[in-house]
Amino acid sequence: MKVLHTADWHIGKKLHGYDLLSDQAYILDQILKIAKTEAVDAIMIAGDLYDRSVPSEDSVRLLNQTIAKWNLTEGFPLLVISGNHDSATRLATGAPWFNQTNFYLRTRLEDAFVPIELEDTQFFLLPYFEPVDARIYFEDPDLRTIQAAMPKVIKKIQENFAPNKNHILISHFFVAGSSKTESETKIEVGGLDGINGDLLTDFDYVALGHLHGKDALKLANARYSGSPLKYSLSEKNQAKGVWIVDTETQDFSFFELTPLHELTELQASFSELLDPDFYETINRKDYLSILLDDRAIIPNLMNQLRQVYPRIIQVERTNGFETTVVTRLQDENIKEKSPIALTEDFFTAVSQSNLTMQQKNWIETGLHEILQKGGVR
Amino acid sequence: MKVLHTADWHIGKKLHGYDLLSDQAYILDQILKIAKTEAVDAIMIAGDLYDRSVPSEDSVRLLNQTIAKWNLTEGFPLLVISGNHDSATRLATGAPWFNQTNFYLRTRLEDAFVPIELEDTQFFLLPYFEPVDARIYFEDPDLRTIQAAMPKVIKKIQENFAPNKNHILISHFFVAGSSKTESETKIEVGGLDGINGDLLTDFDYVALGHLHGKDALKLANARYSGSPLKYSLSEKNQAKGVWIVDTETQDFSFFELTPLHELTELQASFSELLDPDFYETINRKDYLSILLDDRAIIPNLMNQLRQVYPRIIQVERTNGFETTVVTRLQDENIKEKSPIALTEDFFTAVSQSNLTMQQKNWIETGLHEILQKGGVR
Repeated sequence: MKVLHTADWHIGKKLHGYDLLSDQAYILDQILKIAKTEAVDAIMIAGDLYDRSVPSEDSVRLLNQTIAKWNLTEGFPLLVISGNHDSATRLATGAPWFNQTNFYLRTRLEDAFVPIELEDTQFFLLPYFEPVDARIYFEDPDLRTIQAAMPKVIKKIQENFAPNKNHILISHFFVAGSSKTESETKIEVGGLDGINGDLLTDFDYVALGHLHGKDALKLANARYSGSPLKYSLSEKNQAKGVWIVDTETQDFSFFELTPLHELTELQASFSELLDPDFYETINRKDYLSILLDDRAIIPNLMNQLRQVYPRIIQVERTNGFETTVVTRLQDENIKEKSPIALTEDFFTAVSQSNLTMQQKNWIETGLHEILQKGGVR
Repeated sequence: MKVLHTADWHIGKKLHGYDLLSDQAYILDQILKIAKTEAVDAIMIAGDLYDRSVPSEDSVRLLNQTIAKWNLTEGFPLLVISGNHDSATRLATGAPWFNQTNFYLRTRLEDAFVPIELEDTQFFLLPYFEPVDARIYFEDPDLRTIQAAMPKVIKKIQENFAPNKNHILISHFFVAGSSKTESETKIEVGGLDGINGDLLTDFDYVALGHLHGKDALKLANARYSGSPLKYSLSEKNQAKGVWIVDTETQDFSFFELTPLHELTELQASFSELLDPDFYETINRKDYLSILLDDRAIIPNLMNQLRQVYPRIIQVERTNGFETTVVTRLQDENIKEKSPIALTEDFFTAVSQSNLTMQQKNWIETGLHEILQKGGVR
């Protein structure tokens, strides 16, 4: 059978303040198109469907509509687990009814030990869990970490292997040796460094969620699908898409997705950026990290740029002028300096150039006005 | 057929800070017992399943477990609408799958016009809606209130009447002429005074939610079920329970519920209240509004009472010492009075007795200390 593997949708996630819901709706539609074109027999979603445990109403509506369309309208069997970003309890709403239409949503550790059999394959759905869940389930107070619990979990799963079937594990964890990016949650699962990949060798395929890059893990039989969209600048060079696993040939192929708006870096000078000859040749509505060549102070910079580029996520100066980092003034006598001298120091520190006479005049006039109104607060 | 009518569960509601979840789990179990004993053919829940649009995880768990048990384990058909306290979008999660097991959850205005037919009866499920929903649905910008929209809604429902069936409306609104209590939301539906009861005459039964008293409305064919628990002190004398409607005999009977903890008023003196001969004769674990006969100041009053009565929701003095209401001092010369004189006036106003010499000394010492520390702020 052919099974599609996706994960880490993070519905409701914002990118530097931009609401991604329409980008997410678009990309989920692209995934459905691949599923239909490739005529897959089932779809696996390996956790982090939502970005937050309490998603917004708009996020709930998008997920509800998406899964109803995929399962009820299009008839795809769905194999879905909760991730660390999901509230297992909230996500589980409706789950007992979903089984009737081959929509298997599993949110508790104990669910992992009852395989779902579809055609030639047993699917084991192991949602994200906390060490406390393992302590309770195995009645073993020594299971303080996921690393300690996982051998027991995998062993118990393997006890349920039917020998004449393929065995696919769907799970949501950090596997040791994987490479991470900025947008996954920083807190390590169980406080340690991930589970041992050797535990996974007996599965024909392990469909992982949690890390956002499809190449984060190098194991023969296990893959992160990665997120369907770039959720941080550190993912700018990652190809985004889904895996399709063929259980007969034991092959898996990656199908790339094209987003509604790319996330890209753009290097240019301010005058180039505002020149139609420049911006009409590029996708100026992408999510943009702009690398600005200028060193000069440009009043009202962001507003001017946003007239042309509606989705700027960051502007950085390539030549040493960094808009976000301010060097802390080291002067010991800072309390004795006059407001004008302090302003001058500050300007020099962030622009690495000196005030012109005109600029000094502006500052003096401004400070004078403030002092007349009752002093600097 | 026999149909049970309940509403206004408000799962997750707190009563004066007390978590009611275990009381709610208990009372929902009592409702199920009645449904089984009376062998009803379906259960109607007329809105406000949750107390808040974003319920807690514990609330979600309780509702999910309850409806799964009632519908999947016990096999009762469920007819459910959202109320003004529910988020229609969140509550709707899973709804497209629920129909398969005769669980009809409806959260949108347009759902009202497609009857659910069970045996001899057509059920019309009209959830709480906002005037804007009616404006969009009927493409009529003049529908500014629920009162204006409702005749159109009811007319359209009646167009779908099958003549040889009974017709039951399940809805969640304030019907004009009903009597309200404190615990319903104060904001009137649509900003006005409720819908006209005459609109409802063509239904065999109207199962209403919103008001918490079963006797709030006096119409031949319409009832509020009321909430299954007392959710405010103003409901202390209301009988709580469910209606069971017999569509053949056109009778409806009220089945009373006994809660895990009653909400009652208790009048006694402080010494009586702490006397085992007194408190061992009563249900001291009820939710209690205590009417205290004493006038004297009792240091550490609440802590002492809570040792014996764990669920006190309020203490009031019966003899003029009122803990919550403070009479506003009317003295015109209030700004010229000394702190000591003001304190004395205040004491007299709230206790209706004069300060003793000892009390005056305490106040003088206290005020002196405050003034030394830099004055009264």
